[in-house]
Amino acid sequence: MLENKNQDRTSLSSLGEFGLIDHLTKHFSLQHSTSVKGVGDDAAVLESSEKQTVVTTDLLVEGVHFDLSYMPLKHLGYKAVMVNLSDVYAMNAEAEQITVSIAVSNRFSLEAIEELYAGIQLACHTYKVDLIGGDTTSSNKGILISITAIGKAPKEDIVYRDGAKPTDLIVVSGDLGGAYLGLQVLEREKQVFQVNPQNQPDLENYSYIIERQLKPEARKDIPRLLRDLEVKPTSMIDISDGLSSEIFHICTQSKVGCKIYEDKFPLDPQVISTCEEFDIDSTMVALSGGEDYELLFTVSINDFDKIKGNPHLTVIGHITEKNQGLNLVTRANQEIALKAQGWNSFEE
Amino acid sequence: MLENKNQDRTSLSSLGEFGLIDHLTKHFSLQHSTSVKGVGDDAAVLESSEKQTVVTTDLLVEGVHFDLSYMPLKHLGYKAVMVNLSDVYAMNAEAEQITVSIAVSNRFSLEAIEELYAGIQLACHTYKVDLIGGDTTSSNKGILISITAIGKAPKEDIVYRDGAKPTDLIVVSGDLGGAYLGLQVLEREKQVFQVNPQNQPDLENYSYIIERQLKPEARKDIPRLLRDLEVKPTSMIDISDGLSSEIFHICTQSKVGCKIYEDKFPLDPQVISTCEEFDIDSTMVALSGGEDYELLFTVSINDFDKIKGNPHLTVIGHITEKNQGLNLVTRANQEIALKAQGWNSFEE
Repeated sequence: MLENKNQDRTSLSSLGEFGLIDHLTKHFSLQHSTSVKGVGDDAAVLESSEKQTVVTTDLLVEGVHFDLSYMPLKHLGYKAVMVNLSDVYAMNAEAEQITVSIAVSNRFSLEAIEELYAGIQLACHTYKVDLIGGDTTSSNKGILISITAIGKAPKEDIVYRDGAKPTDLIVVSGDLGGAYLGLQVLEREKQVFQVNPQNQPDLENYSYIIERQLKPEARKDIPRLLRDLEVKPTSMIDISDGLSSEIFHICTQSKVGCKIYEDKFPLDPQVISTCEEFDIDSTMVALSGGEDYELLFTVSINDFDKIKGNPHLTVIGHITEKNQGLNLVTRANQEIALKAQGWNSFEE
Repeated sequence: MLENKNQDRTSLSSLGEFGLIDHLTKHFSLQHSTSVKGVGDDAAVLESSEKQTVVTTDLLVEGVHFDLSYMPLKHLGYKAVMVNLSDVYAMNAEAEQITVSIAVSNRFSLEAIEELYAGIQLACHTYKVDLIGGDTTSSNKGILISITAIGKAPKEDIVYRDGAKPTDLIVVSGDLGGAYLGLQVLEREKQVFQVNPQNQPDLENYSYIIERQLKPEARKDIPRLLRDLEVKPTSMIDISDGLSSEIFHICTQSKVGCKIYEDKFPLDPQVISTCEEFDIDSTMVALSGGEDYELLFTVSINDFDKIKGNPHLTVIGHITEKNQGLNLVTRANQEIALKAQGWNSFEE
């Protein structure tokens, strides 16, 4: 991190747009039989299927969503794919294809963009999705990545945000708050570096939370786990903006209330110790942190026996009638109203 | 054109990202039965079908692809959709859905973004496509639009770039060069305006070519026309970068050569008169102009009787063996080698 990324430079203009697309995508092979035609025509072509198709898209902007001074381009490429796949898995579907469009300023060399695509390729390989198209163009400033992900699921498997019912259990995968705290550590090290570039930071105590920030993994395993357990969630969403904001989406669209318990929040020991070091409340971090890309879902209380004790899943509360509102029960057993604390990139 | 676009201002930050998406998309209704779920969940959901799906995506960047000093935001929204639908029609498919992602700086007001979406909505309504998802975020500078379009066609109808055979006829829809010349007129008026803001330009003599630049129409009618005529093209591409560049794509992918005739190029009278005024060669404009969003395709010579005399279609040449190369036959009956003159946004 924090190194000079411009040692070898081939200018992007020397390749041109078509040359650049060809160059960047020639090592991507198609893995799905449904990917009939990938890059190289006016549009990609996908085989028909009895399953329904899910489509999601996300835009990542330099200086808004990421800071290249500590985000290596390969990680950025990987993470940009994860952000989109996470939305597909949140529909209880399997991701099959992505398109990737980038706008980059001439300050980036071909070698830099190759790094970005190496991360995209690693993500495609690991998650078994096909890159089927995209666009590359110049920008006036910085780099921007726009990805669309396409997935499939049998109609009866797809899970929306609006199906939660009173008494349903509220479940999260993995643990919360790590990505946000990893960002705090990276921001601190960036400031140290700016004052003293010779300083070599020791980040060993933060390895987990930094990885949560720089190389998040989308929970491809959870829809499969739930299928194996014969549990179909009544509602599901991925945690990109923070638990609190996502619970608001589910409760609003399902027209229900909820009660979640502070002492149930799954927190990694590194999250707890880093919260103490930074003097931040770990509950606030779990509620508002964002970027964990875990899944938040609700299941019928009748399914409790199927999920209890599963190391990937934590029950953090339950759905209530709408008129009871959205509430957090603190460790001191006090009930306080939840606030949606979603991140707003337009705030100055 | 060239007016102050900031009379009424509501800041984007006052709505936030979710509020902005809701606000901008609430007047969009779904028209296709295949659009099961649009905006409002982690992903959109599309119904299964026996047809194949085509997917295409394009990125438009302020200062690279458009200049807001003469491109009204409503027209920009409309054109951004056209650019993508054109790629779907170039596969001989019907467009059904789009996703729209935008990155905008805080210099834009809500009213400005509403104008942009009014253009997108007009395009959706006119071309009968559903807006099913997207993302809005802030940018450090300017505005960027990323659109993905999804279409459908029976497998046997889809037309690729690689099927052209020697003796096939080369056909274009509509006429060529107008969009490029419209841009030249607008650039000239912008410079006049900068010198004398009181000057009211008289653009009546350029109405057609300015409309070609500011409000192009994708050729949704051509795949239908060809179906009615019982003609299936052997290859097809849309003309976004200029005739010469598109013919190169078809010939390269089909492994053939071609011969096109300068005197056959379809040119509107306004294109010819404006070329004279600007002292530009109309053949160069037709070959390298770009942004006309007409369709270029090849058909078997046996289909000639079905297309001849059709006012929407012009035969401009024929496919040859690969070893004969790509050639332009001039009005003086000289053969000269074609050059691919595609636009490269990375050139400084």
